[in-house]
Amino acid sequence: MELKLDLIGFGTVGIGFIKILNRKKDVLKNNHELEIKVVSISDKIKGTLVVEEGIDLMKLEEIINNGGKLSDYGKNYYKFSDKNAINVINETSSDIMVEMTFTNIKTAEPATTHIKEAFLNGKHIVTSNKGPIALFYKELKSIAAKNNLYMGIEGTVLSGTPVFNLVEETLPPNSIKKIRGILNGTTNFILTKMEQDGMSYGDALKKAQELGYAEADPTADVEGFDALAKVTILSNVILGGNLKPDDIPVEGITKITIDDIEKAKKEGYRYKLIGETAIVNGNIRASVKPEKLPLSDPLSGVSGATNALSFETDLMGKITISGAGAGQIETGFSILIDIIRISRKIRGSK
Amino acid sequence: MELKLDLIGFGTVGIGFIKILNRKKDVLKNNHELEIKVVSISDKIKGTLVVEEGIDLMKLEEIINNGGKLSDYGKNYYKFSDKNAINVINETSSDIMVEMTFTNIKTAEPATTHIKEAFLNGKHIVTSNKGPIALFYKELKSIAAKNNLYMGIEGTVLSGTPVFNLVEETLPPNSIKKIRGILNGTTNFILTKMEQDGMSYGDALKKAQELGYAEADPTADVEGFDALAKVTILSNVILGGNLKPDDIPVEGITKITIDDIEKAKKEGYRYKLIGETAIVNGNIRASVKPEKLPLSDPLSGVSGATNALSFETDLMGKITISGAGAGQIETGFSILIDIIRISRKIRGSK
Repeated sequence: MELKLDLIGFGTVGIGFIKILNRKKDVLKNNHELEIKVVSISDKIKGTLVVEEGIDLMKLEEIINNGGKLSDYGKNYYKFSDKNAINVINETSSDIMVEMTFTNIKTAEPATTHIKEAFLNGKHIVTSNKGPIALFYKELKSIAAKNNLYMGIEGTVLSGTPVFNLVEETLPPNSIKKIRGILNGTTNFILTKMEQDGMSYGDALKKAQELGYAEADPTADVEGFDALAKVTILSNVILGGNLKPDDIPVEGITKITIDDIEKAKKEGYRYKLIGETAIVNGNIRASVKPEKLPLSDPLSGVSGATNALSFETDLMGKITISGAGAGQIETGFSILIDIIRISRKIRGSK
Repeated sequence: MELKLDLIGFGTVGIGFIKILNRKKDVLKNNHELEIKVVSISDKIKGTLVVEEGIDLMKLEEIINNGGKLSDYGKNYYKFSDKNAINVINETSSDIMVEMTFTNIKTAEPATTHIKEAFLNGKHIVTSNKGPIALFYKELKSIAAKNNLYMGIEGTVLSGTPVFNLVEETLPPNSIKKIRGILNGTTNFILTKMEQDGMSYGDALKKAQELGYAEADPTADVEGFDALAKVTILSNVILGGNLKPDDIPVEGITKITIDDIEKAKKEGYRYKLIGETAIVNGNIRASVKPEKLPLSDPLSGVSGATNALSFETDLMGKITISGAGAGQIETGFSILIDIIRISRKIRGSK
């Protein structure tokens, strides 16, 4: 089966995805009977490439590895002002639009517009962008369903570590009553450094920034907003809620001192920034806040930049998965697994 | 879609499976468009029931809950000597044969014969029996493939906690290079009790027996043979090997003293019985043995009867899943999720 893609947004994740496609081309063909062609790439800053017969991804990766730009690809390049994402979504014959622009958690734009435009053109979508899913999941899901289109969102929570695919493919017909976990790698790294190396909050944050885990402005991570977006998504997608991020109380890790951490350590506890959502008396109760966990809690053993989620289910009890929560290749993989699953669904529906 | 089942072996797991079918009947129908009919149950000790229009499972559960027997169901009951498992597999019009007899790791019988008989009759199979999969996976898989039949084996490792379905549905095209984990709940319970409560090995074993985790003869668990069967299965099914249990070195936990455990604890380590299999220079190296893990290892935090597996992958790094490794409902669920997945595959192949 051949699947054609539009890639919208071509930053770290998009480049990681291209690298994986090159590395796994033969495996995809031989083991999954899947030939993936990227027919367009469009990025607000880097510009637009449209090649209906498929971009030569080996050539593109070489350009990027040599420090080149999208424009170095050749005659199929356009300035974004001449051919933007919306133009491309309307123009190409792709099967799937992959939305990888930067998350804007206030407006969810331009990603939401891109997704709706793709649906209008009969295209399935795959996205790692938390904005549209945190703010407009119900609406987007309903449009997709009406048009028999699929939405892959694995990359919005825990990058490529299985969450939504785990729930959909391996857990039915369990009813999931509660989900809690460590949803942000930066803050978990900082807390781990403070506890294990006795670093102050400021030093641990600096270290996280040096290693590329934390942004220059770390607010979204350390104040809990990144985890908040993910808790909103889990609440709405898995527990069937209809929450907005503003409905959920959030507290970050900035008030935790090294003294707090050492006191907890002596008592046999460990601080973790915990995102939680649960169905309580028919209502969804969600929160993001630091918690002191006993060392016997499986989440307390999750250290460094690793993320983890525990699902409380009616048949299987507690199931916990841990793995990467970010990373170029890891998030790139989240895009690919959703495309593989869409290919299986398309085959299944025929 | 309607699916008809033969249940062969009607012990704890089979009864758990019936209870789940009753509890989840509406969910299966509404969310999965799946109507499951059990057309036969056959158990060497309890006898055989054959009802082509489907056994009334509510009635059967009530009989069992009231301490009744299969023979109390009524006129569709036969003595096993009059109608045995092989007769039933040949006689009914079922779509799937569910093999839940007791694991015999030396001969893998009668389960292997049941599975082959089902394949000869064009029936898919689902099994929680480790014997046939540990000893004859390659052969059975090849027969299934030639006949376009599916084999569900989720319950053979970690009961219903996703392992094979996780790998098949949520991780491709990752290449898995190494799998290691805690594969036996009884031994993990004993080690946890020894460390946390300072119990001797003998007292902890007694406690495990009281709670129903360990059998009267605990050899298969404490000498590592149960974990060995699972490591063999993981090696052959996921890493593509062709090992027999005898090819893999095995060491149980019987030689570990409370002194060893307390010494390790002081050094910041914890004993766990670890099953491991990995591809090393193109060969598969597998083992079962107690290991002293640093507390930073995600497997060291897995306590009590919980099991866990870590997969080392090329794209996603390390992914760890933990959950129940045994239990009536948990293993019953493993049967059901495989049936759901087979129903999706049947739909997909049409």
